[in-house]
Amino acid sequence: MFLRVDKLQIELPAPAQQDVNAASALQELLGGKYGEMSTLGNYLFQSFNFRSKSKLRPFYSLVAAITAEELGHVELVSNGVSMLANGPDEPGADTVGPTDITGAPFEMMKDARLAAGFLSHGGGAVPIDSNGLSWNKDFVTTTGNVIFDLLHNFHLECGARLHKLRVYETLSDPTGREVCGYLLVRGSVHAHAYALALKQITGVEIEKMLPTPNIPLANIPESQKYLEEGSHRRLYTFSPEDYREVAGIWGNGEMALPDDPPGELEVVEGMPEGGKIQELVGEPSAFTPDYAPEEMYEIATKLYKASR
Amino acid sequence: MFLRVDKLQIELPAPAQQDVNAASALQELLGGKYGEMSTLGNYLFQSFNFRSKSKLRPFYSLVAAITAEELGHVELVSNGVSMLANGPDEPGADTVGPTDITGAPFEMMKDARLAAGFLSHGGGAVPIDSNGLSWNKDFVTTTGNVIFDLLHNFHLECGARLHKLRVYETLSDPTGREVCGYLLVRGSVHAHAYALALKQITGVEIEKMLPTPNIPLANIPESQKYLEEGSHRRLYTFSPEDYREVAGIWGNGEMALPDDPPGELEVVEGMPEGGKIQELVGEPSAFTPDYAPEEMYEIATKLYKASR
Amino acid sequence: MFLRVDKLQIELPAPAQQDVNAASALQELLGGKYGEMSTLGNYLFQSFNFRSKSKLRPFYSLVAAITAEELGHVELVSNGVSMLANGPDEPGADTVGPTDITGAPFEMMKDARLAAGFLSHGGGAVPIDSNGLSWNKDFVTTTGNVIFDLLHNFHLECGARLHKLRVYETLSDPTGREVCGYLLVRGSVHAHAYALALKQITGVEIEKMLPTPNIPLANIPESQKYLEEGSHRRLYTFSPEDYREVAGIWGNGEMALPDDPPGELEVVEGMPEGGKIQELVGEPSAFTPDYAPEEMYEIATKLYKASR
Amino acid sequence: MFLRVDKLQIELPAPAQQDVNAASALQELLGGKYGEMSTLGNYLFQSFNFRSKSKLRPFYSLVAAITAEELGHVELVSNGVSMLANGPDEPGADTVGPTDITGAPFEMMKDARLAAGFLSHGGGAVPIDSNGLSWNKDFVTTTGNVIFDLLHNFHLECGARLHKLRVYETLSDPTGREVCGYLLVRGSVHAHAYALALKQITGVEIEKMLPTPNIPLANIPESQKYLEEGSHRRLYTFSPEDYREVAGIWGNGEMALPDDPPGELEVVEGMPEGGKIQELVGEPSAFTPDYAPEEMYEIATKLYKASR
Amino acid sequence: MFLRVDKLQIELPAPAQQDVNAASALQELLGGKYGEMSTLGNYLFQSFNFRSKSKLRPFYSLVAAITAEELGHVELVSNGVSMLANGPDEPGADTVGPTDITGAPFEMMKDARLAAGFLSHGGGAVPIDSNGLSWNKDFVTTTGNVIFDLLHNFHLECGARLHKLRVYETLSDPTGREVCGYLLVRGSVHAHAYALALKQITGVEIEKMLPTPNIPLANIPESQKYLEEGSHRRLYTFSPEDYREVAGIWGNGEMALPDDPPGELEVVEGMPEGGKIQELVGEPSAFTPDYAPEEMYEIATKLYKASR
Amino acid sequence: MFLRVDKLQIELPAPAQQDVNAASALQELLGGKYGEMSTLGNYLFQSFNFRSKSKLRPFYSLVAAITAEELGHVELVSNGVSMLANGPDEPGADTVGPTDITGAPFEMMKDARLAAGFLSHGGGAVPIDSNGLSWNKDFVTTTGNVIFDLLHNFHLECGARLHKLRVYETLSDPTGREVCGYLLVRGSVHAHAYALALKQITGVEIEKMLPTPNIPLANIPESQKYLEEGSHRRLYTFSPEDYREVAGIWGNGEMALPDDPPGELEVVEGMPEGGKIQELVGEPSAFTPDYAPEEMYEIATKLYKASR
Repeated sequence: MFLRVDKLQIELPAPAQQDVNAASALQELLGGKYGEMSTLGNYLFQSFNFRSKSKLRPFYSLVAAITAEELGHVELVSNGVSMLANGPDEPGADTVGPTDITGAPFEMMKDARLAAGFLSHGGGAVPIDSNGLSWNKDFVTTTGNVIFDLLHNFHLECGARLHKLRVYETLSDPTGREVCGYLLVRGSVHAHAYALALKQITGVEIEKMLPTPNIPLANIPESQKYLEEGSHRRLYTFSPEDYREVAGIWGNGEMALPDDPPGELEVVEGMPEGGKIQELVGEPSAFTPDYAPEEMYEIATKLYKASR
Repeated sequence: MFLRVDKLQIELPAPAQQDVNAASALQELLGGKYGEMSTLGNYLFQSFNFRSKSKLRPFYSLVAAITAEELGHVELVSNGVSMLANGPDEPGADTVGPTDITGAPFEMMKDARLAAGFLSHGGGAVPIDSNGLSWNKDFVTTTGNVIFDLLHNFHLECGARLHKLRVYETLSDPTGREVCGYLLVRGSVHAHAYALALKQITGVEIEKMLPTPNIPLANIPESQKYLEEGSHRRLYTFSPEDYREVAGIWGNGEMALPDDPPGELEVVEGMPEGGKIQELVGEPSAFTPDYAPEEMYEIATKLYKASR
Repeated sequence: MFLRVDKLQIELPAPAQQDVNAASALQELLGGKYGEMSTLGNYLFQSFNFRSKSKLRPFYSLVAAITAEELGHVELVSNGVSMLANGPDEPGADTVGPTDITGAPFEMMKDARLAAGFLSHGGGAVPIDSNGLSWNKDFVTTTGNVIFDLLHNFHLECGARLHKLRVYETLSDPTGREVCGYLLVRGSVHAHAYALALKQITGVEIEKMLPTPNIPLANIPESQKYLEEGSHRRLYTFSPEDYREVAGIWGNGEMALPDDPPGELEVVEGMPEGGKIQELVGEPSAFTPDYAPEEMYEIATKLYKASR
Repeated sequence: MFLRVDKLQIELPAPAQQDVNAASALQELLGGKYGEMSTLGNYLFQSFNFRSKSKLRPFYSLVAAITAEELGHVELVSNGVSMLANGPDEPGADTVGPTDITGAPFEMMKDARLAAGFLSHGGGAVPIDSNGLSWNKDFVTTTGNVIFDLLHNFHLECGARLHKLRVYETLSDPTGREVCGYLLVRGSVHAHAYALALKQITGVEIEKMLPTPNIPLANIPESQKYLEEGSHRRLYTFSPEDYREVAGIWGNGEMALPDDPPGELEVVEGMPEGGKIQELVGEPSAFTPDYAPEEMYEIATKLYKASR
Repeated sequence: MFLRVDKLQIELPAPAQQDVNAASALQELLGGKYGEMSTLGNYLFQSFNFRSKSKLRPFYSLVAAITAEELGHVELVSNGVSMLANGPDEPGADTVGPTDITGAPFEMMKDARLAAGFLSHGGGAVPIDSNGLSWNKDFVTTTGNVIFDLLHNFHLECGARLHKLRVYETLSDPTGREVCGYLLVRGSVHAHAYALALKQITGVEIEKMLPTPNIPLANIPESQKYLEEGSHRRLYTFSPEDYREVAGIWGNGEMALPDDPPGELEVVEGMPEGGKIQELVGEPSAFTPDYAPEEMYEIATKLYKASR
Repeated sequence: MFLRVDKLQIELPAPAQQDVNAASALQELLGGKYGEMSTLGNYLFQSFNFRSKSKLRPFYSLVAAITAEELGHVELVSNGVSMLANGPDEPGADTVGPTDITGAPFEMMKDARLAAGFLSHGGGAVPIDSNGLSWNKDFVTTTGNVIFDLLHNFHLECGARLHKLRVYETLSDPTGREVCGYLLVRGSVHAHAYALALKQITGVEIEKMLPTPNIPLANIPESQKYLEEGSHRRLYTFSPEDYREVAGIWGNGEMALPDDPPGELEVVEGMPEGGKIQELVGEPSAFTPDYAPEEMYEIATKLYKASR
């Protein structure tokens, strides 16, 4: 089972301006082969399909716990996408009076790289990559063979790191860069964790291959605050009570990777503190949340009061 | 953010026997157009993309809370699929000695309807439908228009109900039938909830269209215990603290649907008690968790102890 | 614009028995690369995209008129598919009393080759091929170059003929065989027509390549009555008043192909007489048209009377 | 069976200029999830697969008749797409002398959003959406359950309306705007008709949810002439003689929707008067209809004369 | 550039009998995510896209040379598929007299798991997996980052090994088992080679993870003759003169893996001796090579003589 | 089996400048329906699946030999794509010192038509078309019927010619134009060869339909040097010793097509001389071949020396 908390893993800075192509670039980290839907999908189904769970508890718990974090990564990238696609919130924009739609108010959208992002989703995120292609089951490897699945996951996290770096290099807006800066740190934790798991079973010190690509996180300004608070040394259980056995793999005296700020690896029960979710103020002329939403707001207010 | 709990929403009965084609039928409820990946994917992205959240809190919370429950539905169907594909757990089967793979031990799998289920996934669940086709973004509608998205969701839950009923009709095994019996009850709650939300905004008593198809749950033996405990009247927040505003929609003196056991609708904070997850004992000859897994078990045991 | 007539191009014999795998085989002729959706899709879009229509009227009219016939072919194959999937009509089967769905009444469907045919479509036809894969735009060639598009169409009709022959060879049921027998005759007309069009422009006697594959229709018993009535010599305009210019290509003293019954080619304005559409009696236990449809029938009867 | 008439449902104004990205935006209404191929595909296969047709005649006829209209909508959008992609007709452009192709005459096409529109289709329409992705069977729902299929169709028409509105907002060219303006009116008729059908069976006044999105057609200048002539009150049978039973649903004293010009709903046998199809003058340098088409024109002229 | 030699890498034993479902299982090794089209496609495009080739010659040559071998693997699996689908060659079967196709001679094909294999391909191989789904670009990783691409390739070969083992376990026929037995040996060479390349760059002894899955090839009877001849120690350049620089990676005193027969690794210039390609005698009743092929044979004979 | 030679079929001129959209246009000739992956895939699988090879040797050899040439075409287009995507080689660019990635150095890539080309492939080629869609099995026709497969191939080569012409018209850069100019000549050879094969079997002089489209190669400046050296009259066996029987079809006194420079057709054993492959200098800031590649170069140099 899963519980949901109405927060993002970090609070994202507001976008400097609307940039739908930047939003489309960020989609690579959502629905691409090496995006967050893929890390989520792999670990989700691997954890469902895990064999001999009780005998292999620490390995099962590792995959299961990271799955829950990946859900939040999907959420984080999705929020980044819709924030970039819609631009900075303009308070009150969703309560304008009669809206004129006759002057082709969204003409620029016909030249947007992925026009369906507006036409179909009103600027929202969907599980597609930066070329508009759907995430799909070909991105999921779940064989039931523990060593192979872990090796796959290690490769997946390295690929995800490369893609985050490249997306980062295309973005000048603070929103998207923050998404990348944070996920680079957390992705490194996952790559490191799968490496340690593989080392436990096979004896191969595969964590020495990290970081791949070989650029230290110290080079990414947006990653610094997360490194400083030690995020790269923490594995969260993302559970009220379960998955503590990950400490058999992440811990045990293992230390941070040489390129990163030093210190011992630690398991944190539960989740990070998190940050506020963007409001995403509606745009009546785009029919979000509606063309003439006032009455809807009134009803919602009444229901809200009734719920307390 | 999301948290994970190492339980299923209900405990599933063990399968009577291995039945890979039944597992494939059940996949329709996992990766089909009207399956759980679709309900999950729609609500997940709708909640991420929701506009003017603060002004429309009860509606946002409804979609957000149900998303979390759908994650558990994806988990439940996935467990059902792998249980059927693998048959009843045989304790100790994963610690047999040298395994002979030369006598075509899985010859029957070449005639299984979806042979890749064994070849690629070792009997595990993946996001495909009953014909083996991938779940994909075409199954996600997230327009940002609140009325339309709710209408879509109402239709989606009715379609999901029809598909659950038909899958149920193809299964004689208790595992798959229990999955259907439970999900029929919970799906009815979601259809009802979206209907009430629509009624609040539009005044149309669309809940009077329920149940669609027009068969009462009373006809499904496997649904009875859930009806008796009042599951059809409960909407869970699936959150430690958030989404309580759903009570503005689910509550307010609204009553159970006429066909179901009577009573007032109620919001339950948190999640149901849940049940144990199946062990899924490995099968070394299928390389799950490995061909000769003994050493791996030993390592895991050591790590497990180290983690406590 | 298009008009619809509530008839099939021929009346199909009732299926001898339900055979869902035969229905799935027939799907190749509906949604496969060389199926009727493909001939339809190619000619439909080619006719929409046709350049310099007025200067090239006979060629435009040829593609446009055949498009309309292909719509009826899609309809014919679809009817064949659903007839085979559902078996012979049992009058009154759709008015049975309370239906018990608890005994896994459709268990056999979990072993059907394409189980989603039942689970999702209740035995209905959809635009997929015999392996369950979707028809898609990759099957449409519309370049705007008249010679190339005609050459493509000639090749397409030859490929369609080969696929019809092979599907025919897998079917013992009269319904599916009649579909093939009729479409073989009509497909031959289209191949012949495109060949004549190409010959007019290029001088190449490409019609001498017919029939491809080189089996005369005389060998197919189910095709005989259509040959006898001269269907192989007739091109219909499938229009109340338009497309008569096809006579510039189909006509002009050209004769039937050597393997077929001799005679001059002729253009027929309008459409063939056609035959009755199968009733497809519903099955309440499969929720078609509904679980308890009696009230629905009453309403329909009332509305029907009101409409006269 | 289907007949074809060599006219569009309305005559489209010529495009002001070539705008391939506008053409690509319009593709959303052709091959997108909520585009005309989808409405067509759903109703086409639902009508083929309809159960107990004779007992449910008015409902069957409704779906069957609307199918035929949708064919014309696919045609209308396709014409709009190719007109925008090719720009205003230049008489005689298809009879220029020797054409030089060496100076990269279509260099601008490499920057067009969907370059394959030129490279593969010479500016023609194909069944793809505004991101270039194929229409496919995932967009077709045909379950055989009448209430559910009607509910799906109602939702589909509302979604189609939203998409038309958004595409309209991106277009400044008269051709594309006219397509949207007309289809908004006709789509409203279909949504209304499915709502009335559902109301007849379930008693739920779901038509009160219309219009969704909640913008009156009065706000769309391009829709006015169609409203004035009462198009929003007319359901055509699109058949020489069949489907008159739709009058049991559309009629019966039901009135136009409150936002639209008032009046009683009426069934019109046959089809609207329609308008001329655009010539789409060829472009020899793009090999449409050919590189040096003069001889082809001569041949066509001769054949045309021979056909009279 | 590529040259072709009219031989298989090994001679395959004739199939014991026709087994279309075994052929479909073997398709997993052709068009599946971890099949030979994938190893080919990855190395083909990686070698095309390789950066700074001259500075990284041994790594470039490794990928380029293995690509050429993979082409032969695609060929080998394809031959295995068509041999199993068609059964043992019956000399003269392609010169039978008049063939009767009216008695549903291929009725069994409608129940074959992947019926299109017969309907569309006459028993031939195509780039699909064991569920009939297409190979596609999602299976190709080519990032241009050398370490990551090599890591991906290492993981890919391990995954390919697991899939070969599982396919092997479903096959009792000698043809398919020989394909697996040989490819297991050659795939191990590739996994080993990529591991050594990674070790050279990163220092990580990742080859110690081999074999994955952890079953020695000694357990596979069909692999023994290849092990005995030392195939597991040989890397071929598959080139008349190029790619010798692979000796910097495969060689250098490195030894066979511990589980395999001992010995030093060696680079072999050129290719293995190879074996005869199966004749695949035609079946006129399936229209292969034609319905009445005698005349075609005569023409071919005449042309053959003319060519000498 | 296949051998590889480290050369392109021709040496390509360096690109004048980086032009990622031109690279994307050229992708149509790589992964599009009528691109080189398609010609390759069709002939590859047709040759694998060929029936009664010994009786039909010249036809088999024709398809088999052209397959090998197509591999080199895929290579040529791929090189063209990556050259255009990356621009002219800058010697030493891959050995720059510390690289700063923080200033959004690839911001322009977020506006590139197919951004994943950079994000995922670092400017490399992949099997997709100009809209970013994957090559797939729907582009492969292999029925086993010799006449039909040859007819398909003839149509395929004509379609490929049209697509090459249109891509050529969008490119001003010398690299892409040279790719087109050369492939137009070689594609004409293949169309001609399939036409002659068809003529031998059917007697139809289908080669008289060439060239389609009807523009002589004399109009394409980049094709001239290849015409002058007689490339249009040469069919290579692309084999050390096999496939000489193609001389029964290509030869026999047949002459060049009327539009091309006159002369007799000739079979050339082996392959053309070929040209140098572009270096594709890496870009450390894009992580190709790596972020800090110096050590990797050193290792490679050492290994290179060890290999000699």
